Amino acid sequence: MNPPEASARTVVQQLADLAVVTRRDGLPAGLRDDVARRVLDLVGNSLAAGGETSASAVTAVVRGWGGPTDATAIGTGLKVPAAAAALVNGTLAHSLDFDDTHLPSVLHPSSSVIPAALAVAEATGASGAALLDAAGVGIEVTVRLGMGGYDESLGNSEFFERGQHATSICGAVGAAVAAAMVTGLDADGIAHAAGIAASMGSGLLEANRTGGTVKRVHCGWAAHAGVVAADLAAHGLTGPPTVIEGRFGFLHAFCGDRADVDAVTADLGERWELPGIFFKPYPCNHFTHAGIDAALEMRARGVDPVDIVAIELGAPTAVLRTIAQPPEEKARPRSGYHAAFSGPYTVAAALVGGAGLGVFHDDFTDEAALDEQRLNLAALVRCVPDARCDEIFPHQFPAVLRVTTTDGTRHEVRVDVNRGGPGNPLTTEELATKVRLNASRSLGADAAAAVAVAGLDLPSAPDVSRLMNLVAGAGRG
Amino acid sequence: MNPPEASARTVVQQLADLAVVTRRDGLPAGLRDDVARRVLDLVGNSLAAGGETSASAVTAVVRGWGGPTDATAIGTGLKVPAAAAALVNGTLAHSLDFDDTHLPSVLHPSSSVIPAALAVAEATGASGAALLDAAGVGIEVTVRLGMGGYDESLGNSEFFERGQHATSICGAVGAAVAAAMVTGLDADGIAHAAGIAASMGSGLLEANRTGGTVKRVHCGWAAHAGVVAADLAAHGLTGPPTVIEGRFGFLHAFCGDRADVDAVTADLGERWELPGIFFKPYPCNHFTHAGIDAALEMRARGVDPVDIVAIELGAPTAVLRTIAQPPEEKARPRSGYHAAFSGPYTVAAALVGGAGLGVFHDDFTDEAALDEQRLNLAALVRCVPDARCDEIFPHQFPAVLRVTTTDGTRHEVRVDVNRGGPGNPLTTEELATKVRLNASRSLGADAAAAVAVAGLDLPSAPDVSRLMNLVAGAGRG
Repeated sequence: MNPPEASARTVVQQLADLAVVTRRDGLPAGLRDDVARRVLDLVGNSLAAGGETSASAVTAVVRGWGGPTDATAIGTGLKVPAAAAALVNGTLAHSLDFDDTHLPSVLHPSSSVIPAALAVAEATGASGAALLDAAGVGIEVTVRLGMGGYDESLGNSEFFERGQHATSICGAVGAAVAAAMVTGLDADGIAHAAGIAASMGSGLLEANRTGGTVKRVHCGWAAHAGVVAADLAAHGLTGPPTVIEGRFGFLHAFCGDRADVDAVTADLGERWELPGIFFKPYPCNHFTHAGIDAALEMRARGVDPVDIVAIELGAPTAVLRTIAQPPEEKARPRSGYHAAFSGPYTVAAALVGGAGLGVFHDDFTDEAALDEQRLNLAALVRCVPDARCDEIFPHQFPAVLRVTTTDGTRHEVRVDVNRGGPGNPLTTEELATKVRLNASRSLGADAAAAVAVAGLDLPSAPDVSRLMNLVAGAGRG
Repeated sequence: MNPPEASARTVVQQLADLAVVTRRDGLPAGLRDDVARRVLDLVGNSLAAGGETSASAVTAVVRGWGGPTDATAIGTGLKVPAAAAALVNGTLAHSLDFDDTHLPSVLHPSSSVIPAALAVAEATGASGAALLDAAGVGIEVTVRLGMGGYDESLGNSEFFERGQHATSICGAVGAAVAAAMVTGLDADGIAHAAGIAASMGSGLLEANRTGGTVKRVHCGWAAHAGVVAADLAAHGLTGPPTVIEGRFGFLHAFCGDRADVDAVTADLGERWELPGIFFKPYPCNHFTHAGIDAALEMRARGVDPVDIVAIELGAPTAVLRTIAQPPEEKARPRSGYHAAFSGPYTVAAALVGGAGLGVFHDDFTDEAALDEQRLNLAALVRCVPDARCDEIFPHQFPAVLRVTTTDGTRHEVRVDVNRGGPGNPLTTEELATKVRLNASRSLGADAAAAVAVAGLDLPSAPDVSRLMNLVAGAGRG
């Protein structure tokens, strides 16, 4: 195809043009491998989440729906229609807050996009490369829409300021683009799928403040929406051509006057956000990670937790709302899930010494959240805004940790560059370790090890069946 | 149950308390019959929509999903899982813009709520009364959430100002409450279902401006979300207690500083919006109706369209954006669907003389939209703001029509009170006529007549199977 001049195309049409060109020519060099690492990371995170209430809830729902066994609901032993698999897998992928993160938009694009693309790829027998190209474009679309609500001068996202979960709202559109690419829709069809999904994506952030597990389903709903939108577009439903930039379109609806349409299309196809999206080494809120990095370094320097009498965690002002307030709740999180959003708790867990890459799932059980050693340390943590962190944020999520020990010594570790991001990436070995440990929560050790191999082989795989059969699992419910 | 003091309950908990009390005691006198009329209206509207692209698209999608034959997809001959039936029936209900309307919020609550309640009622064998009580509360919740974004002093809704389709966004929550009531969840479970659905409702209005058929699926998606949310709540997923009023909750997310939380809960259970929600006599945008009423009166006074040389349609300033702009598009709508949003076209159709209650589906085919007689009349229509209409709007959608004929005579008809609303309600006979004509587009004449009887009998029906079997249809696709 020869797309018309971009300037004559609406935003959604430009996104569809990128999709068609990428499907024809493939992702730029290196990006297929990057997306394969994300697929691998996602299936690992999903396999680790099978025991969560969110997992059992969505699994029970789609079990009731029955239907053709087209696609795998990861770890459940179920094969279900693609739209149902997307609901389950998107939920699993995001349930442990272990999914990759784009900065500065603070979106988790893979958890909505990859489950949609995987489900449709499995149902249609698409190649590994086709899956990766589609997921890559879907992720790009998702984070660019997120950047359409990001204000560099204020350093925040209008989506989040309003309480709208950009991850799932933008993710639904990215998921639709990916699903439509795999399905084989043309540029018009892909644009319609995106335009339909823009009326389907949703998600409120209130649960992060006052409780409830609904946020874990946000990306499942977005992935479900993406698959349904692509299917509806394939059957003739249409979206408005100005769905993104129009007066009553996506960006105005969610970001009002703060919408930045140019951020969505600038250098589209020339500059890719993909390789810079952060992998998470620890299964907790991303804002807590640099504090954990610092605490692990503190341990490596020989600081013994029993000697600690005072701890100060400096962080960007904007993240304190999430990881430090209200202080009494953060010092004694009401559950393991809430512990994953607590700066004091996560620093304490890292100082005590966790599993995996430094802090792992065992640190976020309800039992662990009641552990006296961790809670005693967490009670010592004072969270404060830090000027240097404010300068760096939100292109990184930095932190500074200051610990005073019984002998009066003051230790300081400053982390400007998060582990797992482009400035300090996880090695393939570290990623494989993360995936293997995650997968072994649902699979036997041999199968868990095989998952990592099958994931990294995706760029040359004839289809996704080998990987999906490995991660299907025996089922829990 | 004995609910705690309302003041100690969050908003969503107060809504759940209303649900539980209403399930126990039944709707106030007269309201069950009112809701039965809405169910009847809805199945008629749905049966009329079977030939639309939106109908064939959602039908094809759920056909692919397969699964247990728990609930009826109206007019398709298909029995599918409840969540799938809700998707189809909500889409059908809203596809022709013939569904009931709450003023001044301009919400169409029945199209999201009733399909969800009907599907779950059919799947669980609930009684007609249980269905009506649940649907009544769901409708009340929907319009109250809509009023939470309505500003009396400005006379508009912040949802709509932003481009957010309040109908489906609020409708998802109302649908979840209704579905959860029928399912039998307790107050906590109903509150969780609402809290989950608040993260699922969606819908953008851009298609009304630049085209695309996606808006027709909005209520289907909301109904689908409502059924899924209730099912997830039944399996242990939870929402935040402050989901409606919280800083990152529903009202702030969609309405910001213009949110009016008190409008949601004021006199809850004492004052019901239900009986005042307008039925639509004509299958087109509600803003066009008073113009049609006036044109029909003009004809009754003996004005012959061939004698007309000039037409002025006065309307509230706020509606001109929808029915009068851009003028060239409204004078020659690009399709029958777009004709339903045109003031000039609908006035012309009524002056020429339509079917049904004055203007009916035959006036909104693509062929009719090309009819020279209508277009010549539409070209004569000048749309202007009218001060008296501005005073009355948006508690009614008034209009004034002024026609000049070849002999220089000037005729004026002013309509302050819409036909179909509480000030000028449709008689049961008129409603039955509407339903019968709608139903006969999918069913034989006898079956179409039987639908009206079965609908009005719902308050005493042991279950909804008789009605649903009547409206199941033989199927098109």
